[in-house]
Amino acid sequence: MKISVVQLNYTIADFTHNFEKISCAMHEHKIADLIVFSELCISGYYPYDLLTYDEVINRQNQIIDKIKKLTKTLDTAVVIGATTAIAGLKKFHNSALVIAEGEIIHCYHKQLIPSYGVFDETRHFIAGQNKKLRFKFKGQHLAILICEDIWYDNHQGYLINPIDDLPQNLDALIVLNASPSMFGKFEQRLQIAKNITRKIKAPVIYSSQVGGYDELIYDGASFVCNANSELIALADSFKEGSFSIDLGRLPQAILKAPYQDNPQAFVLQQLICGLKDYVHKCGFKGVVVGSSGGIDSALTLAIATLSLGKDNVKAITMPSVYSSEGSVSDSVELCRNLGIELFTREIKEEFLLTCANFAKAFGTEPKKLTKENMQARIRGRIVMEYSNDTGFLMLTTGNKSELAVGYATLYGDMCGALNCIGDLYKNDVYALSNYINQAYGELIPQSIIDKAPSAELSEGQKDSDSLPDYDHLDAMLKLYLERDLLADDEIKRLESIVAEIDLNEQKRIYRLVELAEFKRKQAPQILFIQRRPFGMGRRMPTTAKFNKSC
Amino acid sequence: MKISVVQLNYTIADFTHNFEKISCAMHEHKIADLIVFSELCISGYYPYDLLTYDEVINRQNQIIDKIKKLTKTLDTAVVIGATTAIAGLKKFHNSALVIAEGEIIHCYHKQLIPSYGVFDETRHFIAGQNKKLRFKFKGQHLAILICEDIWYDNHQGYLINPIDDLPQNLDALIVLNASPSMFGKFEQRLQIAKNITRKIKAPVIYSSQVGGYDELIYDGASFVCNANSELIALADSFKEGSFSIDLGRLPQAILKAPYQDNPQAFVLQQLICGLKDYVHKCGFKGVVVGSSGGIDSALTLAIATLSLGKDNVKAITMPSVYSSEGSVSDSVELCRNLGIELFTREIKEEFLLTCANFAKAFGTEPKKLTKENMQARIRGRIVMEYSNDTGFLMLTTGNKSELAVGYATLYGDMCGALNCIGDLYKNDVYALSNYINQAYGELIPQSIIDKAPSAELSEGQKDSDSLPDYDHLDAMLKLYLERDLLADDEIKRLESIVAEIDLNEQKRIYRLVELAEFKRKQAPQILFIQRRPFGMGRRMPTTAKFNKSC
Repeated sequence: MKISVVQLNYTIADFTHNFEKISCAMHEHKIADLIVFSELCISGYYPYDLLTYDEVINRQNQIIDKIKKLTKTLDTAVVIGATTAIAGLKKFHNSALVIAEGEIIHCYHKQLIPSYGVFDETRHFIAGQNKKLRFKFKGQHLAILICEDIWYDNHQGYLINPIDDLPQNLDALIVLNASPSMFGKFEQRLQIAKNITRKIKAPVIYSSQVGGYDELIYDGASFVCNANSELIALADSFKEGSFSIDLGRLPQAILKAPYQDNPQAFVLQQLICGLKDYVHKCGFKGVVVGSSGGIDSALTLAIATLSLGKDNVKAITMPSVYSSEGSVSDSVELCRNLGIELFTREIKEEFLLTCANFAKAFGTEPKKLTKENMQARIRGRIVMEYSNDTGFLMLTTGNKSELAVGYATLYGDMCGALNCIGDLYKNDVYALSNYINQAYGELIPQSIIDKAPSAELSEGQKDSDSLPDYDHLDAMLKLYLERDLLADDEIKRLESIVAEIDLNEQKRIYRLVELAEFKRKQAPQILFIQRRPFGMGRRMPTTAKFNKSC
Repeated sequence: MKISVVQLNYTIADFTHNFEKISCAMHEHKIADLIVFSELCISGYYPYDLLTYDEVINRQNQIIDKIKKLTKTLDTAVVIGATTAIAGLKKFHNSALVIAEGEIIHCYHKQLIPSYGVFDETRHFIAGQNKKLRFKFKGQHLAILICEDIWYDNHQGYLINPIDDLPQNLDALIVLNASPSMFGKFEQRLQIAKNITRKIKAPVIYSSQVGGYDELIYDGASFVCNANSELIALADSFKEGSFSIDLGRLPQAILKAPYQDNPQAFVLQQLICGLKDYVHKCGFKGVVVGSSGGIDSALTLAIATLSLGKDNVKAITMPSVYSSEGSVSDSVELCRNLGIELFTREIKEEFLLTCANFAKAFGTEPKKLTKENMQARIRGRIVMEYSNDTGFLMLTTGNKSELAVGYATLYGDMCGALNCIGDLYKNDVYALSNYINQAYGELIPQSIIDKAPSAELSEGQKDSDSLPDYDHLDAMLKLYLERDLLADDEIKRLESIVAEIDLNEQKRIYRLVELAEFKRKQAPQILFIQRRPFGMGRRMPTTAKFNKSC
């Protein structure tokens, strides 16, 4: 039996578009007996509360009807992910439909419905209780599972492990996925597949979606692992792709996992994928970024240029009274390297006028912090003005360390549609910047990488005046934000770094993280690439008085 | 047996503070045999991802130990809501502990874990499977359920209805709650309790928390319904409170449900409760609001003054080149009526300078929309400057109709820590404003209520130039945003109003709602008082291409 696996880049609830892609792939692979798509592929994963609209379910079902017809005319069958309604319920099943000759010949409902991390599936789906996992198609015995089903985690309180219930004598297990991207995740997926092949003594066919979906990035890399636990088919990472295998004559060559030794190349591709799709799926072409001459905006501009092309990226340098010379000259050099247009928009005049008007209206000189935020907000507004006037989306540039301790101004440098680097700690920002310079030539001027980080909002200000160095800060933050997700040896390693910091200083930093919660509540969406992103990955009350250090 | 029900205003994860309250109440009610608190009361409901911190569970457990001791020294017992860990799991039980003489004598785990609307409990809790619901205390047979357990909704896919499994021969059922406030909800709760009393032929003791917790407001009104389905005990609404009953000699007088005929008085108390607690629990005293002379900011200022007192509310009027005379004079009258300080801060100079600098930097005059947003953002920044300088929290003032269609400027009038009126449609804004004037004298000048709504961001601009009148708009929006939650007759009523609007205009409005999703993603938290608030109540992808009208 010939099976094709097709990984596509869907747009949420854009049914016409998604069907075109599916239909195209079905035509291309019509020689296959069975074409395998991914989890909830007709709507794209994840539709969230769009599922409360009957129209969404109805349009999806119309697409299913079209696919049924296609299976007849093309004489091929498909496995396709879909939302299936349950009579009388407001919740659904997250299902896989096997459609052949115009009929649904098998329907599987996902059994493990994740509700943790970035997953909210219990909001819309209930666990499937399937009568029969095995189905026969063209003489082969197949079974289907969906994503979390194979990620059974005995810490989540699931009542069953679907792997344990897999039927005997399978010719292959098909797994439909939408598993968000993370460095090292492919190896995890492969390891899980290998464990299953050992148990069922049959190949595992793992299909996934690809592309950026709001904060979430899917890296594709659909694969097949044979009964001997060997990787024998693999689709591209970060690209639409497909492959075909014959169950009776599986390929012999053993393949290598992608990106294994190059985390930075992987992270860069994640961010390019996420940014490009966010901009394009929202109907825009380009982006604009305030260029401070610092590393965060430089990296953001570099990623944007690699993602969207130089004509679709604009930078604005906005020197003020406290700006160093380098803030402009480094921006000039950066934009020259990237080949993008740089506008200069002084804010000195407006800053001074605003200070004077403040004093007139409120009868007092603005305080230091007020003046700092004032500049950041004038700048945020200017970039938004360019954005409003031209239709270039504004990107914000705060890294994870900065967002954690609240070193960012709400409605100032926190303005923007999307944050590309908000899931990178400051040291990750340096690592990725260095990688980009190695891989693409010196795009980011060395002077930007070398200079001491500063918001340049008051005279001679440096981040290091009020924060530990970033090696120590990042270690503290990882422990604070991710401890429950870290391995014991990683915790030990980080603790030994943190131990070098004075205990009161530790407490002060942790308190900063807690107090900055209100800022993060209004932050732009952050591309999720590591363990626990701010935003959907970490949900905190604002009015809480939790103080870890007390 | 004497039972006291105590409803308190907790602060999330402020264990010392919460224990003080609990301890105080235990001393006050030590004559009772059993003191009933509310769901998750030691941490306050709802702690969200704070539950990932071991410290939170540890500190809660230390408080449980202290409560145990108190039950000994005071010779009274308690029913208390707590998070209980499950060995080996990252999830918990949402539990009720009965503590007497220093020991936990009964432990109940909530069976229905809600994951819909504003509820995310499956993220942290798993369903309890209790061996035994009935327990005996001082010769009485009691059982406990927790909140959702009695709200079994056969549309949510729950596998059991805990009411069906209630044991026979109970002397009372105790229900611990944290059920968010909504007009008419008390009657629903009472009706559910009545249905249960009919079934079990014993009283239902319903206890709740009170106060504002981020977006969520709890109105208290804990009560007892006797075996004849009569309301015979009732705590205050929107206030801490308690009552005591003797199970053997229940009160005879039948009480009336609170606020039954006065929805506006109820809504006002909801908003006062939510705003006051947000400000105080975040550690602030006062708020500042940009006063446009329009109804939304006027209502916000009135609510703020009623919540926090006139010394803790500041207003800033910021006339520009397009402002009507009324924008200042109405603000002056409003603030005089409210007795609050009003600052005047012209933005004309900065607006003109910004326009000129825009042209200089980008080589083109700013477009109309750019100039509109420019003014809104200069104003947002000015109010934030006052906020930064004084520690008064900025409140934003967008109503639900405006937030729906995106008639608000991100980083402009959308700035603020909290939105008090974001769950009120425009017509609700008028209704509440009129009520306040009836109840408190003309606080909001009639000229503000009478004037045509306008953002005053360009010459002669009126909302009605580009939007249907608010009767029609609100009907369209309710249908679009809440249809699946509405009763059939309400849908029919709204549809008949909407039918008067041209179909293309309907499509255009619905498209506005869809396109404004990115703004709402960064909007301040909104006090939740109706069926489905923006924010936690409606979770939509940004990159989706759903278009309901296609």
